[in-house]
Amino acid sequence: MRRLPLTLLTASLLLATGAANATTTTTIPAAAVKTAERLRDQALHDNTAYQVVESLTTEIGPRLAGSPADQRARDWAVAKFKALGFDKVYTEPVTFPLWQRRSESGAIVAPFPQPLVLTALGYSPATPKGGLTAQVVKFDSLATLKAADPAGIEGKIVYVDYQMHRQKDGHDYGMGSAVRVAGPVIAAEKGAAGYLLRSAGTDAHQRIAHTGVTGFRDPAKAIPAAALSNPDADQLDRVLAYGKPVTVKLALDCGIVGEYTGANVIGEITGRKHPDQVVAIGGHLDSWDPGTGAIDDGAGVAIAMAAAKLIHDLPQRPDRTIRVVAFANEEMGLWGGRAYAEKHAKEVRQFQLGTESDFGAGPIWRMSASVKPQAHDAIMQIAKVLAPIGVAYDAKRLGGGGSDLSQMHAKGMAALTLTQDGTHYFDWHHTSNDTLDKIDPKELAQNVAAYAAFSYMAAEADGDFGSAPGAFKGDGAED
Amino acid sequence: MRRLPLTLLTASLLLATGAANATTTTTIPAAAVKTAERLRDQALHDNTAYQVVESLTTEIGPRLAGSPADQRARDWAVAKFKALGFDKVYTEPVTFPLWQRRSESGAIVAPFPQPLVLTALGYSPATPKGGLTAQVVKFDSLATLKAADPAGIEGKIVYVDYQMHRQKDGHDYGMGSAVRVAGPVIAAEKGAAGYLLRSAGTDAHQRIAHTGVTGFRDPAKAIPAAALSNPDADQLDRVLAYGKPVTVKLALDCGIVGEYTGANVIGEITGRKHPDQVVAIGGHLDSWDPGTGAIDDGAGVAIAMAAAKLIHDLPQRPDRTIRVVAFANEEMGLWGGRAYAEKHAKEVRQFQLGTESDFGAGPIWRMSASVKPQAHDAIMQIAKVLAPIGVAYDAKRLGGGGSDLSQMHAKGMAALTLTQDGTHYFDWHHTSNDTLDKIDPKELAQNVAAYAAFSYMAAEADGDFGSAPGAFKGDGAED
Repeated sequence: MRRLPLTLLTASLLLATGAANATTTTTIPAAAVKTAERLRDQALHDNTAYQVVESLTTEIGPRLAGSPADQRARDWAVAKFKALGFDKVYTEPVTFPLWQRRSESGAIVAPFPQPLVLTALGYSPATPKGGLTAQVVKFDSLATLKAADPAGIEGKIVYVDYQMHRQKDGHDYGMGSAVRVAGPVIAAEKGAAGYLLRSAGTDAHQRIAHTGVTGFRDPAKAIPAAALSNPDADQLDRVLAYGKPVTVKLALDCGIVGEYTGANVIGEITGRKHPDQVVAIGGHLDSWDPGTGAIDDGAGVAIAMAAAKLIHDLPQRPDRTIRVVAFANEEMGLWGGRAYAEKHAKEVRQFQLGTESDFGAGPIWRMSASVKPQAHDAIMQIAKVLAPIGVAYDAKRLGGGGSDLSQMHAKGMAALTLTQDGTHYFDWHHTSNDTLDKIDPKELAQNVAAYAAFSYMAAEADGDFGSAPGAFKGDGAED
Repeated sequence: MRRLPLTLLTASLLLATGAANATTTTTIPAAAVKTAERLRDQALHDNTAYQVVESLTTEIGPRLAGSPADQRARDWAVAKFKALGFDKVYTEPVTFPLWQRRSESGAIVAPFPQPLVLTALGYSPATPKGGLTAQVVKFDSLATLKAADPAGIEGKIVYVDYQMHRQKDGHDYGMGSAVRVAGPVIAAEKGAAGYLLRSAGTDAHQRIAHTGVTGFRDPAKAIPAAALSNPDADQLDRVLAYGKPVTVKLALDCGIVGEYTGANVIGEITGRKHPDQVVAIGGHLDSWDPGTGAIDDGAGVAIAMAAAKLIHDLPQRPDRTIRVVAFANEEMGLWGGRAYAEKHAKEVRQFQLGTESDFGAGPIWRMSASVKPQAHDAIMQIAKVLAPIGVAYDAKRLGGGGSDLSQMHAKGMAALTLTQDGTHYFDWHHTSNDTLDKIDPKELAQNVAAYAAFSYMAAEADGDFGSAPGAFKGDGAED
């Protein structure tokens, strides 16, 4: 996951204000609701999703966008869709800058020489041969960095010390990711030689650094940037507290080496009545390289594949198509999601409803929706089916569609958000610790239950959810 | 910590069988007991130990025996003893083989290529240039490896998959350390090309490997040996479960490069009446290199220093000397402890009582003793003073004196063991995670309370605890 779902509480909320503009009311036939309830209950005892994420993380492991494992992961996804019996399996190309990580290390040079556990950030350039050695200047927040005089920054390594804490909705990542994405750009603009942050992670006692993308868009203006593990940030804080100048050496061998064309991998359960109308679900296939991408986002791919597989196994196909997208290179800037939205923008009316799973494998506890007023009843029907598995509908929040599918929502696709319990997500997110053992098979199955039930209902609905070009601009879902 | 305290329940237990052979009974004067109670209560509100371990881990950080940080740590210890006001500060040389770790990496090569998180073990030689690539052969236990036909091992990488679990007394480390110490030697004897174990650690979900020493004594017979993190061992197990041949590559750049002379650093609070008679306490100054040696064993050094400092601050010196030893190179084979015992063997009768702290920074919950019958009453007096801070005396167990001081006990020194709560000790032991944040200042202070109180009482006792050449051979404390 790169970005949190939209939480624009100030936006106008059409659902809450009734269906004044609706001409017809969308509902889900009683038979479809019953089938959805069966799918939901069946999913709780189905371990397909766990088998899928186990297969992906074991057979492919880490799959950094553009790495040799990227190709292996695509081959895996095509083969897995086919093995699960999807009606149609295909890929769509996605082109992006190819960033490579070759090696990384760091150390306090003075006054107390010792190594530091750190990891280079996405799009960070390499340090010069022999490393970058410079004095550290610390900021407690992004705001103080923004306000700082460049004179105190020039030629130094800027260190921003923002500490994330655990929350169910993971909201500290709003600031944590800003420190990682925007911080390096601001530091570079002020003449910094390098950038360090306290990892955007909630594992306060683990000597494991959290990688992630920076906001560097112009390689000529980028500076070496890395994240310290939380205990290493504590240590740097203690060393700085002695009040002497602190010198750090960064040795990062990484950088953009060209362009790469990967692909979104797509599998479909073809609709019986309206094959060209789709319910879009998915996750992203790429992962950061230190872990095996289990919670980010093997789980999302597995949840969507397993939900569609349950629908596939019904006696007959649903009215509309269930489309599962395993997106390319979400991690380094929603490349797969943006390519997908550009390619399919003109078909936006054919997207009945969509949402992506990209916040780990914890149980879903909240549903929110960005749909048009005519879909109010249908949303309430979906909410009623999901309530028994612990999902509460929050009518005051918008749905954003998830990370990559946020881009299709921005084009006008009606979208849900199914919010997972992210209490521990940022313990492991973007680290070597993102491994299969962090997934509870029962919690994963609860996710599948929600995705299977809502997808089926949306596919069987009489009427639509309001998708249209630019339909959700008022919600902050700007293109 | 390298070895667990002796738990030879089958040994004859003199304390429990009365004082038939004693000619005089050792007791602690009432005034000394009162002072010990005051020291105990005062220690609970004293943060000297935390300040000491913070200073060591921040200013020196990792201090692998023989590294440049080894010299800095000795200088630090001398300066710290002096700053705390110890009456006498000196060093005694300790010579040992110099083992260096330069770099390490590993990967599954086939059938599912991906990196592995691992760490080289102490005394492991380097792999050949280009690394060692070989098929993995797995054993579930040391016993099955011992029983295995060399034909199935020759030229392969032996992998032993023993999983430690958390316990208060850490007893799984008995087997965990055997798999690490003896396993590589057995594998080498059977012709293995390399050795891997599941880390001897209880952090089942952390992608952090646990280093530690092997039993290699003859470099000519040693093979490259490394520990996988627990999640990496899980992953290797999953890959092996596909039933195809699994090839792993190890690239370890490490090995013995010569000999090094470090030193035990010793600080004393000189006894008023019997300056040549000593109560010996301490910890070890060296640490493994991935962490900063906070729980292993900065805590032990700090507990002993702070306990002696409290006694130093009394209006007058105790009858006997309090000697704090910060031992050299405990980690790679009790080099400091063995050198100390060899040097001081003939003075063993002058060692009133001794014990070392080397099991982390958790609270002490149990006391056991290896003393002669005449000291029964004195031990009961000590136990009574420690009981209010949660220390239960276990008359059925022996005291071993701790890691390095076990060697002096083997020469005949009467010894206590003050057992700490080690529930989480093996989560962090010998890893990068051995950092200051794992220490609770209040729990550390409880340790100081126990060490200050017992040391003072032993130093003030009327009579001895039975130290004499070879006095504890019957307890299994063989020289």
